[in-house]
Amino acid sequence: MLAKPSVNSQVAEIDYLLREVGGLLRKWGRDILGGFDITNPQFEALLVLREHGELTMGELCAKMFLACSTATDLIDRMERNELIERVRDTADRRVIRLRVLAKGDQIIDRILEARQAYLTNAMSGMGASEKARLIWSLQQLSSVLSREA
Amino acid sequence: MLAKPSVNSQVAEIDYLLREVGGLLRKWGRDILGGFDITNPQFEALLVLREHGELTMGELCAKMFLACSTATDLIDRMERNELIERVRDTADRRVIRLRVLAKGDQIIDRILEARQAYLTNAMSGMGASEKARLIWSLQQLSSVLSREA
Repeated sequence: MLAKPSVNSQVAEIDYLLREVGGLLRKWGRDILGGFDITNPQFEALLVLREHGELTMGELCAKMFLACSTATDLIDRMERNELIERVRDTADRRVIRLRVLAKGDQIIDRILEARQAYLTNAMSGMGASEKARLIWSLQQLSSVLSREA
Repeated sequence: MLAKPSVNSQVAEIDYLLREVGGLLRKWGRDILGGFDITNPQFEALLVLREHGELTMGELCAKMFLACSTATDLIDRMERNELIERVRDTADRRVIRLRVLAKGDQIIDRILEARQAYLTNAMSGMGASEKARLIWSLQQLSSVLSREA
């Protein structure tokens, strides 16, 4: 691939930065959650349920890219912690759906506030157009990583 | 916070995209590793050792933000799989360092090739200046996420 050295080195640099940013995102997310009584999978499950409404276990596993065997444990613990409850579908009583409880809603709000307070502070040197550039790049990245291999 | 609605909504959007991209990065990384006989923590440990040379266990844990109790298991398994070996420091024989073996080097190279082949393909519609914009944004992000809270 001698013909396009600069393009290849851009891709190599993007891959390097993706690994770096991926690691930093994990660490940052974990640090923020450290102040709350909740694990990362629980936080993600709450976000998915809040975004998509009351899902069945199968739907939740699919959206979280998680094996349902793992998710059962997770959901049991979240129910014990009063973050969610299992409810019967009103149309089909055989179907069980997961519903976020008030305590779950409150904890998500507080975590999102903590994340955004951090970001607001850490990005205080960036103007609106720089932030817009960052948004554009993250959208590009989301579509690049969602593509079928 | 009614005074700056647009700024706040930019931060909220960046936070949303960070959560989305974080999840996609995890899934994409896992999908790529699926074709190789290695786990994600093993891949990350190999990358860190290759970048920083022969580290002690304590240095490796610190760079991976990992508890050393977890890392011992990881390193034992990597040694059994002939990805790395434990060697005595030449200057201080009491110190044990971790060294990447040829098999470890080869597997990293193949994984990095697979990642970059995917990215090259998925970003084929982007020009060099768009890629440069993405690199700039990822660098910004890396510095934002590295800041002390």
